[in-house]
Amino acid sequence: MTQATNLPDDAFHVFDTTLRDGAQREGINLTVADKLAIARYLDEFGVGFIEGGWPGANPRDTEFFARAAEELDLRHAQLVAFGATRRAGGRAADDPQLAALVNSGAPVITLVAKSHDRHVELALRTTLDENLEMVRDSVAYLRAQGRRVFIDCEHFFDGYRADREYALAVVRAAHEAGADVVVLCDTNGGMLPSGVREIVADVLAQTGARLGIHAQDDTGCAVANTLAAVDAGATHVQCTANGYGERVGNANLFPVVGALELKYDRRVLPPGSLAEMTRISHAIAELVNLTPSTHQPYVGFSAFAHKAGLHASAIKVDPDLYQHIDPETVGNTMRMLVSDMAGRASVELKGKELGYDLSTDRDLAGRVVAKVKEQENLGYTYESADASFELLLRDEVRGRRERYFALESWRTISEQGPGGTTGNEATVKLWAKGERMIATGEGNGPVDALDRALRTALERIYPQLAKLELVDYKVRILEGQHGTGSKTRVLIDTSDGTATWSTVGVADNVVAASWLALEDAYTHGLLRAGLEPDAA
Amino acid sequence: MTQATNLPDDAFHVFDTTLRDGAQREGINLTVADKLAIARYLDEFGVGFIEGGWPGANPRDTEFFARAAEELDLRHAQLVAFGATRRAGGRAADDPQLAALVNSGAPVITLVAKSHDRHVELALRTTLDENLEMVRDSVAYLRAQGRRVFIDCEHFFDGYRADREYALAVVRAAHEAGADVVVLCDTNGGMLPSGVREIVADVLAQTGARLGIHAQDDTGCAVANTLAAVDAGATHVQCTANGYGERVGNANLFPVVGALELKYDRRVLPPGSLAEMTRISHAIAELVNLTPSTHQPYVGFSAFAHKAGLHASAIKVDPDLYQHIDPETVGNTMRMLVSDMAGRASVELKGKELGYDLSTDRDLAGRVVAKVKEQENLGYTYESADASFELLLRDEVRGRRERYFALESWRTISEQGPGGTTGNEATVKLWAKGERMIATGEGNGPVDALDRALRTALERIYPQLAKLELVDYKVRILEGQHGTGSKTRVLIDTSDGTATWSTVGVADNVVAASWLALEDAYTHGLLRAGLEPDAA
Repeated sequence: MTQATNLPDDAFHVFDTTLRDGAQREGINLTVADKLAIARYLDEFGVGFIEGGWPGANPRDTEFFARAAEELDLRHAQLVAFGATRRAGGRAADDPQLAALVNSGAPVITLVAKSHDRHVELALRTTLDENLEMVRDSVAYLRAQGRRVFIDCEHFFDGYRADREYALAVVRAAHEAGADVVVLCDTNGGMLPSGVREIVADVLAQTGARLGIHAQDDTGCAVANTLAAVDAGATHVQCTANGYGERVGNANLFPVVGALELKYDRRVLPPGSLAEMTRISHAIAELVNLTPSTHQPYVGFSAFAHKAGLHASAIKVDPDLYQHIDPETVGNTMRMLVSDMAGRASVELKGKELGYDLSTDRDLAGRVVAKVKEQENLGYTYESADASFELLLRDEVRGRRERYFALESWRTISEQGPGGTTGNEATVKLWAKGERMIATGEGNGPVDALDRALRTALERIYPQLAKLELVDYKVRILEGQHGTGSKTRVLIDTSDGTATWSTVGVADNVVAASWLALEDAYTHGLLRAGLEPDAA
Repeated sequence: MTQATNLPDDAFHVFDTTLRDGAQREGINLTVADKLAIARYLDEFGVGFIEGGWPGANPRDTEFFARAAEELDLRHAQLVAFGATRRAGGRAADDPQLAALVNSGAPVITLVAKSHDRHVELALRTTLDENLEMVRDSVAYLRAQGRRVFIDCEHFFDGYRADREYALAVVRAAHEAGADVVVLCDTNGGMLPSGVREIVADVLAQTGARLGIHAQDDTGCAVANTLAAVDAGATHVQCTANGYGERVGNANLFPVVGALELKYDRRVLPPGSLAEMTRISHAIAELVNLTPSTHQPYVGFSAFAHKAGLHASAIKVDPDLYQHIDPETVGNTMRMLVSDMAGRASVELKGKELGYDLSTDRDLAGRVVAKVKEQENLGYTYESADASFELLLRDEVRGRRERYFALESWRTISEQGPGGTTGNEATVKLWAKGERMIATGEGNGPVDALDRALRTALERIYPQLAKLELVDYKVRILEGQHGTGSKTRVLIDTSDGTATWSTVGVADNVVAASWLALEDAYTHGLLRAGLEPDAA
């Protein structure tokens, strides 16, 4: 590991614990390679500290620190090893767990300490005095080994309420023994901002220690609790990327940094990093194999999406009246959703986004709005089907429907035989470039079979279809009070490896609706590939 | 509509706007039936006000209020219609939009008013004075029509920062004209709790108006902003179920109510309602066809899930040391991960609810838990499929599968011919009471055709099936990253005219999954009709 040389200002710490506490989230299971990759993204983002895990307690974490020393070339962050204070009744210098922390090579060590009297008695099973001695001894030992030490006071806020004097005594013990930062942890996540502010202010006044905050999100207030602690004087914030963590999660790094940089006007990242926030958030989500939350503050796909027709005309005049920040600041973009609440203004904005200027032709814009409303009455929705909207727009602009193939007929057969085995088969008959094509496909379901038949029919003429992949498929039954006779809406996401687009189909049944969405999906893909539409 | 007689204390309002502002969320598109169903859940939960939509501006909302008057029997909530102040230069008494609000029959009306000078000029295109007059005139008119009026001051916080005096003048105008509550809206969602607290306190001191808060979640602080306003003296909180709303979303009803009830010790719900919070949150998510967020505070599936390790043994000694509230309080449960999913206790409780005592037979309860886990691994969920769970339970209790018919095979054919006409046909072959039945049905889609074929095959032997009707049908694709080859989960609601029950089926494709859910639906219906199962 190369030690970072471009360190952020030490007066305020952004401390990331995605690799340690974030990994406690249900469903996350990180390999050492995952952890190294995430550490690189966090360093690129510019956090000051990356807590990598608990070497000695967890073999994967021991390996992480060993490989980090070889493979990581951090520019901004310092790597932190996490561990506990020495065992009760022992000596820090003899404690194998503390030795593992030193041996990890991490320049900074976070020690978790108990600060709630009942936890000392029930979980540690030792005396209150011995716990204080464990803090002092462990901190002093690690300081003597040349390490910077932060102390995580576990269950601090509950402990403060149960026995304020003892909780303060733990803070003082850590501070006096040489801990650089004493981190007050809301381990159970039950705090609200007003309580955090009050308690942090009192601890600061009583002890004079440098304070940090570690908030869990069980009340939905982890970001606000973190900021409340900063308001009260904390200068070290512990967060995780995308708020990953045990139970509900931890304070989310991105809105905390967003608030500090953009609302508090406090520079905590290297220049230029904030504009990478959206990309880095999504990249880390992909690495831990979770779908990026579409509704995450600042970085979600929907975070700057506007639906209401009410606002659309004014947004054209001054977008800043309708957004709390310029989305480009955090690498996100404003999106106009086309919906039944939308009028001409939002259709014009959407057209512009897609490269069609509708503002000069009021008649055209009016036809598009009318067509959208007509389709919405049938059950279509374009707000999450950009590609279908673009085809509709294109047809109106050109004054005719331009496609690459024309359907003659399709048929699907699904069956379950006496032995319980199921089969699905589809046949399509269509015309493309003047030729009639017939193909049959088999699949996991009728729509899968239809998709395969369509590809088989077209692959000779349009080899570009081979790289298109259906990546998501959603079905919604409309007017749910009429049972299986209702209308069905299908949304399909398709990718060509570089971009993803969404299409929609609505029909009496799921197969017919899927056909329509598939037809749009492949038409858009062939347009993207630069092919001229067929005369069909 | 029956007017609610069991109204909550008027001193503090929990005001839900899921049906109006929540519906602005990208991807939500509610039918009138969806809105009525959600209103029933919100009333059951016990909110004081349900904002239903904008009658007159949106035909679906006009229909909602008309149907609500006939069909809704609210016990706790009052229905609220939303609209805007009258047009610039007109008279409230002549304004068709205000007339539509009155005609909706809603006892309470929320009017949105501009309170930011730039928005008055750019979006309303009128003068600051005329805007004040629009507020006064509109409020006075609606008061004279006997309606209670709340005013939503749009963009209030940004407006206060741009021109404090003007923002205060709007509050005073509304208050003096007779608005009961003046709601300060953080429309762009850029506020943090410290700013909200300060501004709300100032507005209260300057105007003496009763204040409400409407927070958007763009900084990740909507819940905390709502509570900060309450700290400063607001007595009306606007929220949406699961935080649905435009962009990132609105203040989430459930953590706001959780904090008020459990942290502020303020009773805002009828007795017993808080324990229904988890169920109601999930039911509303199902209705809007969004997966319930597993990491939502209080009500998420993971909200009280502990990864084993450091805490495991101490949790056994005293679980309250490791959770901020008792999860049962909000209808959720603590889960120790490693042993995933359903525990014995919840299966026992569920069995008891259905009339099966599992507490005396540990072996039986264990078999049921094992079977549920096995099914959940396949993608089943029994949370909203009571009837399928009861059949599973019954099979384990009896030690064998008891049914009324046994499938030999089914086949569905869907096709679209050259003329564009579509057809769907299904054939089923099955055994019942020793006879082999073959029948073919036609329908709007393959599942509808299958349903008709099944009824035709069985109707002579089981005439009771004639009165069963499929009332809802939902499809969800599981593991959405594999396109149309994914697993499909189908949920079917069936009614016999007096009761409704839900069944589930999971399979590789939608037809096979629908068959399984249909089979359970009719089996449950015949059991309810009191018929003895066939030996089949």
